[in-house]
Amino acid sequence: MTDTTSTRTPLSSTARSTPTRYRERFATDRAALYEVLDEGLICHLGVLLHGSPVVLPTAYGRIGDTLYLHGSTGAGNLRAACTGDVSVTVTLVDHIVYARAAMHFSMNYRSAVIHGRPVEITDHEQRLAALRAVVEHSAPGAWDTVRPPDKKELAATAVLALDLIEASVKTRRGDPADDPADLGSDSWAGLLPVRRGFDSAVPSADLAPAREVPGHIRARATDVTSPSDSERAVEP
Amino acid sequence: MTDTTSTRTPLSSTARSTPTRYRERFATDRAALYEVLDEGLICHLGVLLHGSPVVLPTAYGRIGDTLYLHGSTGAGNLRAACTGDVSVTVTLVDHIVYARAAMHFSMNYRSAVIHGRPVEITDHEQRLAALRAVVEHSAPGAWDTVRPPDKKELAATAVLALDLIEASVKTRRGDPADDPADLGSDSWAGLLPVRRGFDSAVPSADLAPAREVPGHIRARATDVTSPSDSERAVEP
Repeated sequence: MTDTTSTRTPLSSTARSTPTRYRERFATDRAALYEVLDEGLICHLGVLLHGSPVVLPTAYGRIGDTLYLHGSTGAGNLRAACTGDVSVTVTLVDHIVYARAAMHFSMNYRSAVIHGRPVEITDHEQRLAALRAVVEHSAPGAWDTVRPPDKKELAATAVLALDLIEASVKTRRGDPADDPADLGSDSWAGLLPVRRGFDSAVPSADLAPAREVPGHIRARATDVTSPSDSERAVEP
Repeated sequence: MTDTTSTRTPLSSTARSTPTRYRERFATDRAALYEVLDEGLICHLGVLLHGSPVVLPTAYGRIGDTLYLHGSTGAGNLRAACTGDVSVTVTLVDHIVYARAAMHFSMNYRSAVIHGRPVEITDHEQRLAALRAVVEHSAPGAWDTVRPPDKKELAATAVLALDLIEASVKTRRGDPADDPADLGSDSWAGLLPVRRGFDSAVPSADLAPAREVPGHIRARATDVTSPSDSERAVEP
């Protein structure tokens, strides 16, 4: 994952980046950031807890340039997330990269890393919109078909907003980057695509037997196509 | 992901845990930890960099009770990983959990979180064994079929070892945990299995056309079965 063919794409408009150099790439970079965030299922949230980093898997949702997280008001990691900078990372692994030399083995992947300090949302309408975004992120089309949050549930839930200001997208694509001297080797070289997608939905044991799986869920149980050949070109 | 039905399984033998209480579960817990680590493709490594947590996707390998990471000697996150505690997290998402109420939507998942301070490995044989473990983790059977690392490659590579002493496994399984009052609802409820596995391998553009995909790679392009029904029982 630390392959030298990776490209780093800064999106930041802060001192940690070099915006003038990358200004012309901003639109493309935003699209790449949204693509990774929208295709990922979970993020890994890194917070500082008692002086050490703690990384936990977390659901999320996105509205425009804001990422939303939620959790129990009692969760220590959420409290820690509001008192200092966090790192939120979403990673999609596309291929295992088989090379002719051990040190050129790699993975093709796309990852988004966001830095910033989340803010707890207190406005009722904004909280509802954020919770809707989180639910719809992993279950598109579901929110309008289920019971909305009640007062008690809302009181027990913390909703955090993280601006997508300081973010970067890192990508590795294409074939293994073998040394010219290894090209005549007997070893096989190429890509093993990582499968993504969903299998058929399984009804809950306490659901009435005759209930059909709704269309918005049934439609998800299809293959997500692997990156196309045009995306396989070796990067410089 | 912050579902209240989750179970936390401490494995630690440090002051951060309660080993006497969980001593009888140690063997089971170790098996659960190995299962998550061995099934995952990548980990998310959290380090402290300039006072803030930074979370990056990273390849890894395991030998017994040691996790190995590797990277370029120039990588800032690896340098930071050796100067303080890190958090290494591996997450497998098994199902999207569709509930009858928005706040009961969840995911079934298994995650391993390891804390500790990695040590850089300097012994030549141990470094080779660790690099082999990392390559074999994502490409089992490949190491013996490719060119081993040479002196120059080894000099440019840092290999870190992290003891699996302070670790925990967190799991959510089974059906949605809907409120009794919602069971009569019209909403569908159940699990959408997340697909895992690999598609057929794609040869590198510079590979001789007649080369067959080796058996150790071809064998991976099959469905990994979803968790069986016996694993779907709702946890208390």
